[in-house]
Amino acid sequence: MVTEQLVENILNTAYEDIPDRVKEHAKKSMLNWLGVTIGAIEHESIDILVSLADELESASQNTILGRNQKVDLLSAVLINGTASHIFDFDDTHLDTIHHPSGPVGPVVFALGEKYDLSPKELIRAFVLGCEVELRISNAVYPSHYRQGYHITATAGVFGAAAAAGILLGFNEEKMAMALGLAGTQAFGLRETFGTMTKPLHPGKAAQNGLLASLLVNRGFTSSTQILDAKRGFLNVYSQSSQKEKVNDSWGQVWEIEKNAFKPYACGIVLHPSIDACIQLSEFAAPDEVKEIRLKVHPYVLELTGKETPGTSLEGKFSIYHTAAIAFLEKDASENQYQENKVNNNETVTFRKKIKPYVTEEMNKDKVEATLTKHNGETIRVFIEHATGSLENPMTEKMLVRKFRKVCQKKLSASQINQVVDQLLNLERIDSINQTLHVINEDNHVK
Amino acid sequence: MVTEQLVENILNTAYEDIPDRVKEHAKKSMLNWLGVTIGAIEHESIDILVSLADELESASQNTILGRNQKVDLLSAVLINGTASHIFDFDDTHLDTIHHPSGPVGPVVFALGEKYDLSPKELIRAFVLGCEVELRISNAVYPSHYRQGYHITATAGVFGAAAAAGILLGFNEEKMAMALGLAGTQAFGLRETFGTMTKPLHPGKAAQNGLLASLLVNRGFTSSTQILDAKRGFLNVYSQSSQKEKVNDSWGQVWEIEKNAFKPYACGIVLHPSIDACIQLSEFAAPDEVKEIRLKVHPYVLELTGKETPGTSLEGKFSIYHTAAIAFLEKDASENQYQENKVNNNETVTFRKKIKPYVTEEMNKDKVEATLTKHNGETIRVFIEHATGSLENPMTEKMLVRKFRKVCQKKLSASQINQVVDQLLNLERIDSINQTLHVINEDNHVK
Repeated sequence: MVTEQLVENILNTAYEDIPDRVKEHAKKSMLNWLGVTIGAIEHESIDILVSLADELESASQNTILGRNQKVDLLSAVLINGTASHIFDFDDTHLDTIHHPSGPVGPVVFALGEKYDLSPKELIRAFVLGCEVELRISNAVYPSHYRQGYHITATAGVFGAAAAAGILLGFNEEKMAMALGLAGTQAFGLRETFGTMTKPLHPGKAAQNGLLASLLVNRGFTSSTQILDAKRGFLNVYSQSSQKEKVNDSWGQVWEIEKNAFKPYACGIVLHPSIDACIQLSEFAAPDEVKEIRLKVHPYVLELTGKETPGTSLEGKFSIYHTAAIAFLEKDASENQYQENKVNNNETVTFRKKIKPYVTEEMNKDKVEATLTKHNGETIRVFIEHATGSLENPMTEKMLVRKFRKVCQKKLSASQINQVVDQLLNLERIDSINQTLHVINEDNHVK
Repeated sequence: MVTEQLVENILNTAYEDIPDRVKEHAKKSMLNWLGVTIGAIEHESIDILVSLADELESASQNTILGRNQKVDLLSAVLINGTASHIFDFDDTHLDTIHHPSGPVGPVVFALGEKYDLSPKELIRAFVLGCEVELRISNAVYPSHYRQGYHITATAGVFGAAAAAGILLGFNEEKMAMALGLAGTQAFGLRETFGTMTKPLHPGKAAQNGLLASLLVNRGFTSSTQILDAKRGFLNVYSQSSQKEKVNDSWGQVWEIEKNAFKPYACGIVLHPSIDACIQLSEFAAPDEVKEIRLKVHPYVLELTGKETPGTSLEGKFSIYHTAAIAFLEKDASENQYQENKVNNNETVTFRKKIKPYVTEEMNKDKVEATLTKHNGETIRVFIEHATGSLENPMTEKMLVRKFRKVCQKKLSASQINQVVDQLLNLERIDSINQTLHVINEDNHVK
């Protein structure tokens, strides 16, 4: 019944049924997703994926966002989805730690490009795709995540298939089977975190979900009860799940509204400390600082406790480097995690002054920071809700500034302005191809 | 340690270390796999996969076995792997119900074709790929299977990656990471059985495993401890696993030797009854038969209890149809499951005479069959070990006859003879391309 009900909910929700504020948030999510995708498109791991697509003599069908190249539809979705997660700078559904735009964004962009679809349909597909994946995440979190599954990928495949099914105009039967063929491909182990594989997960989830819908579109059959069957996803992939969460309050509660954009290019558990150190940097010069004590949530030491990081990626898993660089450079974007920043003398020296500790249960979005100067003076900063949390979200202005920052090496100021304007007013442009054309300006698209 | 040890075992096992009898069994497995693949290559679900590859303008790189067409390497592996499982006529590792050739065969053939590899290396890759996937299956069976995972796919992806890694000449680090990138893609829900999705599972597992190795080959990184890490495959995908089974007795016990070839195109639980009905058909004409009682293992009623099948696939899940057609036609190959056979008057009438029952625990490979004639005469047949079981395996002659039967619509007698001869003497031919050339004779390969 759960799958059937979900399919009904998807098909019965028209563009007009979606509240304006939800559509606004969806457009922002898509802009945020696009920015971090373009920003990371020259990463080594993307070079590898592109090189493989070249070896497979992939056809020029769909744009790799930010590169002078097109590849076949399924490869484009894999590559764009992977890129979006490389910087750890995308978005987070805080209830489930699911990063929603990764599996759904690439599908919406690629089918929009291929079929020149109405941007309103793209918005609808994005909203409902995220709704599907996040509600399934709600149903299986936290046991599914704690067991070791990467929920962005395992639940994300459903969102990707749903978004594709919407854009392909599926009826109930096809949508149910697309979810079936998607769900049976659910995968993703957190054991692979800390390697190139982690960002591949949402890219592959996007590709798997799209594949499911493309096959069902041609008559491929699958289970129509993949979620709630006795040996369906909710039972097999989670030791305990609450299946009613998939459909409860559909149309009243919109999960995409809980999608929080990251102000910093690292895990959200570090964000309160970054906020605090940026604030503290106003009160002392680096050489005046004796130590900075940070009272933090236990996850900070558990997940990001690396004391002597040597690489970019290690830097992102180090409260020591992160707090230090936030103080020194008043930011924690991709720039602050470059290898030379992680390893240079100034950062290596300063990070020894960072003293995180856990004394009582702190919320994940809180920190209490105390800076002690060499002269004995202390400054205390308390972060109640980190930037990017639901109580203290990034403003549209901050989001646009982030887009500029992350795309500055790839797009001119003029291109950035046009893309921002088009995405934030997506329902008023003719086609996503307009935006892709802007992105590909000055580039000879193969 | 488990992953590390497995990698060492793989790399330390040369072609010469493999006993001759194991190599013989591998060659038979490959012949059996090739036959059922070619036999099913015109199936509707393969048409769908090919149609999608065409839409993606897939490059002409690797042969679709039995079709006049080449597609890109990854698509060929998906398509060939899927075809091999369509008839449910392939092979079974009876301890775990894992069907080993599906995920590994396509990878070995495709890389052999692409790189014109030495057939001895292909044999080695096939043996060791199967060893990897079957040993992992041993470690997680039965709880993993009972939970609802399709073990052929979930464990198969490791075999595919290992086979590819062997053929690509991986060192320890690359092999470990290939297993990591494969294992994180492990998928497959049995809930999808009874639809086109089930055969897609080994095809996709083959493709996922090959993708893992192709990416690692180019420098993609992943976990090197995917099996035994705290949140690795053995812990996450199974409520209880015995990790020592992965490496125990490596080189003394060869799991591929336990690979049983199917004499009939349906689940092995039906095979004892088929044997029995074929034997009974010698003792009575159809119209003399009042009833045939079959004392069977409980799985027969649980898995194949469909009383009034209407389609081919339903026929394969019906002891009633299967026993009837085995009596009437003395076989249960793909022919006996054609829709006209399932639905024709004679079969529909005769299947009402089939009376399966469970009174005590029968082994899965046993049956006690009692035919009662209208004149009161009874004939009893007891099958101790069904054809295809380890105690009563298919002979090479039977295997060749099966190959002929399943390929007769696609290959001439001369082609069949050449292919059989080449596969059974694989180490003596120059390249698998010789065999592919024979298969593609008279065909204009795109």
